[in-house]
Amino acid sequence: MSPDIGVAKSQSLETLESTVIFMTVKTTSISLRTQGNADIHDITDQIANAISKSGLTSGIVTIFCPSSTSALTTIEYESGALSDLRRLFNEIIPSDREYAHNERWHDGNGHSHVRAALLGPSLTIPFAAHQLTLGTWQQVIYVDFDVRPRQRELVVQLIGE
Amino acid sequence: MSPDIGVAKSQSLETLESTVIFMTVKTTSISLRTQGNADIHDITDQIANAISKSGLTSGIVTIFCPSSTSALTTIEYESGALSDLRRLFNEIIPSDREYAHNERWHDGNGHSHVRAALLGPSLTIPFAAHQLTLGTWQQVIYVDFDVRPRQRELVVQLIGE
Amino acid sequence: MSPDIGVAKSQSLETLESTVIFMTVKTTSISLRTQGNADIHDITDQIANAISKSGLTSGIVTIFCPSSTSALTTIEYESGALSDLRRLFNEIIPSDREYAHNERWHDGNGHSHVRAALLGPSLTIPFAAHQLTLGTWQQVIYVDFDVRPRQRELVVQLIGE
Repeated sequence: MSPDIGVAKSQSLETLESTVIFMTVKTTSISLRTQGNADIHDITDQIANAISKSGLTSGIVTIFCPSSTSALTTIEYESGALSDLRRLFNEIIPSDREYAHNERWHDGNGHSHVRAALLGPSLTIPFAAHQLTLGTWQQVIYVDFDVRPRQRELVVQLIGE
Repeated sequence: MSPDIGVAKSQSLETLESTVIFMTVKTTSISLRTQGNADIHDITDQIANAISKSGLTSGIVTIFCPSSTSALTTIEYESGALSDLRRLFNEIIPSDREYAHNERWHDGNGHSHVRAALLGPSLTIPFAAHQLTLGTWQQVIYVDFDVRPRQRELVVQLIGE
Repeated sequence: MSPDIGVAKSQSLETLESTVIFMTVKTTSISLRTQGNADIHDITDQIANAISKSGLTSGIVTIFCPSSTSALTTIEYESGALSDLRRLFNEIIPSDREYAHNERWHDGNGHSHVRAALLGPSLTIPFAAHQLTLGTWQQVIYVDFDVRPRQRELVVQLIGE
C-alpha cells in the first residue's frame, strides 16, 4: 500500500498549499550613505522594491533604525517641507547648547540622541495588492541626526502572505 | 484506489486545518469626514469593530494615515486633554509664521506637514481574546492637521490568528 | 481501508509540518514598578527574554503601553542622554503651568497625557536569528510621565515563525 500512501501524501500537501496561502516573514535591509546633521533620505522606492522582490501580496512592512541617532517618519518629500521639519528640530532641540550626554562622552551628538528618541526608530506600513498604502504626496524618510557622515543599514522586515 | 486517495486527501486537510490555526492578513478601512485645523476623532470603536468582524482572536492591528497632513496617537479622549494637546502643536509648530513649504505651494498647510511628520502616520496595537489591549482611559485618536474639511480614508490592517 | 487512510493522514500532516514553518502569535507582558515624573526604565532585556522564551526565530515584537500617561521609544541608555530627554519634555510640555485636563479632573497629570501622546504608546521592532535588531548603543525605554508611583503592565506581543 505504500505507493498509494505516497501519492496521498504528496497530493494532500499540494491541495493544502493551493488552498491555504501561508504567511511568512522576510527580513532584508537598506544601505545608505548619510551626511548627518538632519540629512533626510527618501527611502520609499527601496521599501517598494523589497515588497516587490518578496512576492508577498499583502501584509505589513516594518522599517527599523538600529541606531540611537537617527529616525523615521513620513512627509511630502519636497525641499520646503524638509527645511520646515529641520527648523522644528533646530528650535526645540538645538545643537548649540549644553547636553549632559556631551559632557560625559564629548562626541557632540547629545542633541542627535534626543531628536532621534522623540521622532522614533520604527515605522510600520501596511501593503496590499503588492503596493505600499501611502498617500499620493507621502514619502517615507530616514533622518540622520548624527553629526558626521555614516554608512547606515536599516532593517526592513515584511510579514504577509 | 483513487476514491481512497480522495478520502485521504480531504481528511488530511481537515485534520490539519483543525490542528493548526492559520494566521492571516485582513485589510479594511475607516472613513471619516474631518474639519481640519487639529480636528481630533476618536476611532477606537471603529478599530474594535474591525477586529470583531475579522473573526481573529489575537494579533496586531496597524492603523495607517495615507496622508502627510494627519497623524495618529492615543490619549484620554477628554476635552481638556485634547485642548492641551492642540496647545502643544500651536506652540511648537504655530500656523501663523512663515513656512518654506507655503512659499513654494501657497496652500497654507506647511505647519500641518511638520506636525503630522512629528506625531507620525502609523500606530500598531496588539489585540488578544478579540479585544484591543488599550488601557481603561486610553483611546485611539486621528488628528487632521490640514487647513480645510476633508474626506479621509484610513487603512486598518489586521494580522493574526 | 481505514488504517491506510489513517497512516496517510498522519504522514501527510508530519510532512507538511516539517516543510512549512507555521507563523504564530504569542502574547505576554512585562511588569514594572515605576516612580512617575518621567521615570525611565530600560526594558531591553525583558523583551529579549520574551523572544527567547517564545522559541520564534524571526518576526516582530510589538510593545504597547495600555496607559495614556506613559510611552515608549529607544535611546542610548546613559544617564546624560536620559537627562537630556527629560529636559526636552520639561521645556516643551512643562508640569508647572495650567492644563485644561487638570481644571476638569484635578489629578495634576495634564502634562503627562500630552507628553505620552506625543512620544507614543507603541513600538514595533523586528527580530531575526532569535535576536532583536537593535543597534549596539540602542536600548528600549519605557517612560512613565505620570505624577505618582504605579504598578505598570506592558503588553508584549510576538508575531513570527
